Order: sequence, then C-alpha cells, then structure tokens
Amino acid sequence: MGVDPGSIRTGFGLINVISNRYIHIDNGIVAPPKDMVFKDRVAFIFKGICEVIEEHKPDYVAIEDIFMSKNAQSALKLGHVRGAIMSAAVINGVPIFEYTPTRVKQSVSGSGRAQKHQVQEMVKILLNLKEVPQEDAADALAVALTHAFSV
Amino acid sequence: MGVDPGSIRTGFGLINVISNRYIHIDNGIVAPPKDMVFKDRVAFIFKGICEVIEEHKPDYVAIEDIFMSKNAQSALKLGHVRGAIMSAAVINGVPIFEYTPTRVKQSVSGSGRAQKHQVQEMVKILLNLKEVPQEDAADALAVALTHAFSV
Repeated sequence: MGVDPGSIRTGFGLINVISNRYIHIDNGIVAPPKDMVFKDRVAFIFKGICEVIEEHKPDYVAIEDIFMSKNAQSALKLGHVRGAIMSAAVINGVPIFEYTPTRVKQSVSGSGRAQKHQVQEMVKILLNLKEVPQEDAADALAVALTHAFSV
Repeated sequence: MGVDPGSIRTGFGLINVISNRYIHIDNGIVAPPKDMVFKDRVAFIFKGICEVIEEHKPDYVAIEDIFMSKNAQSALKLGHVRGAIMSAAVINGVPIFEYTPTRVKQSVSGSGRAQKHQVQEMVKILLNLKEVPQEDAADALAVALTHAFSV
C-alpha cells in the first residue's frame, strides 16, 4: 500500500506483486469535508487510512516522504497527517517505509526529475490501467510501486 | 488527561475533578530510546499514549498547542508527534481539546507571561503534590488543569 499524505486529500493505492507482475488492487483518496477544522481533518484521515488497511490488510505501508517545505506552517500540517498515517499503520501492525519524491520519480519513470504527469502515465502503463487515476491516488500507486521495486 | 507533545519526551498528566477540587491521578513521560529513528519514535509515542489512555480512560485529552516555530524541520517533527497523539485519542473515542502555551500559563498561574518554573510550582500547589513532577509531565498536568478550568 502506498500513501501520498496531504491534509486536503490523502491518496492511497494498493498493488499486489506476483513474481515480477504488478497488479493493481485499489486506489482512492481520503478527503475530509472542506469546512472541517484541522484537528478533525487529522482524525478523519487517521480513520480513513485505518479502514483501507483493515479492508486490504497490506504487508507494508509505503509513505511519500516530505518535500522539505521552507514554510513551517505547512510542514506542521503535513507532519500531523503523516503522524496519523503512521499511527494507522502501527495500530494494525503494518511496517512503514518512506520514500522521497525524487526516489519515487526515479523508480517509476527512470528520472528523478520527471514531471508529475509523466509519473502518472507510467503508473497507468505499469499497472495496465485504462486511465490515469485521480492525481493523489496515482502518486500513492507510484509510492507503492517504488516499494515493490525496492524489496 | 493533558499532554505536552515532543519527539524526545512527551509528557502526560491525569487529574480528576470533583466539584471544584482537582485531584492528581498520575503523571509521567513517554520517552523513546535515544538511538531510535524518527518514524519509530512516532510509533513509540503513539503506542505509549494509547496505553495511558487505555489504563485511565480519560473523558478528554487536552494537548498543548504548537509554539509556532520558524523552523520548518522542528515544526514537521512536532506535527508528527501531535498527529500520533491525536490518533491515539481518536482510536479510543476520546474528544481532543487544544490550548496554546500562553493560555496554559494564564490559566494556571494567572499570567500568560509566567516563567516555566512558576507554572510548575503552581501545578504542585494546585494538585497538592509533594514535589514538582518531571518538567514535561508538569507541563502536561498544567494543560489538564487548563482544560478543567475551561469546562
């Protein structure tokens, strides 16, 4: 299971690896209602990710690491969301792995400088999808693929 | 239950309110081993706070709000810890309240500009303790008192 954390939308994506075939299982986003206060958004994301983990029982949770913001306020928010996602993995006994955005781009597209839409197209091709999933869900699938390529 | 979040040490403190009497129940710290990597520290704090909540079954969890750091790296770390503590409250169905450091100082000592040791002395006096608890635990008790005074 890959996760792309964000307080507006957290993407998730699940793949299965059978020998060297990568099979798409599910993808989606956890998006708290727009008018929700921040602490409730954190709770919403925690619960949403718990539900996905309970449904699919992944062997690993791979999280996109921080793009190191210079803005302390956005770093603080992203920290909360990542802490909640990690907690959802911990409560379900699932090991956590972290990958930087550059590593994800490199793994999936061959270049650490690939553009967002290129990575998403590669996800579509690698997983034989009919279309590119929602942006954050596609990023989460890219993180899941990065972990699958790394183990 | 009051919590003073920190990735090195997270303090907690529990009080009981009977009419207008404030009774100390327990206090302590959750301190991950020094050599633990950050994601494991977050998991350690999440589990530790879950255990305290499961043991004492508090009606509320009050968390000290962020001292707004200008440093994005420390904001990010503190965010993770707060996200994990919030998740521990959420999984146990306990409502979360947040109080700024200034509000805590004001509530407990009467002044938003009180010094740390003054707040801690006030905690000792208000809860009839024989001595001032460990610093982070004392801060957590101050947060618990702030919530008790606010409801």
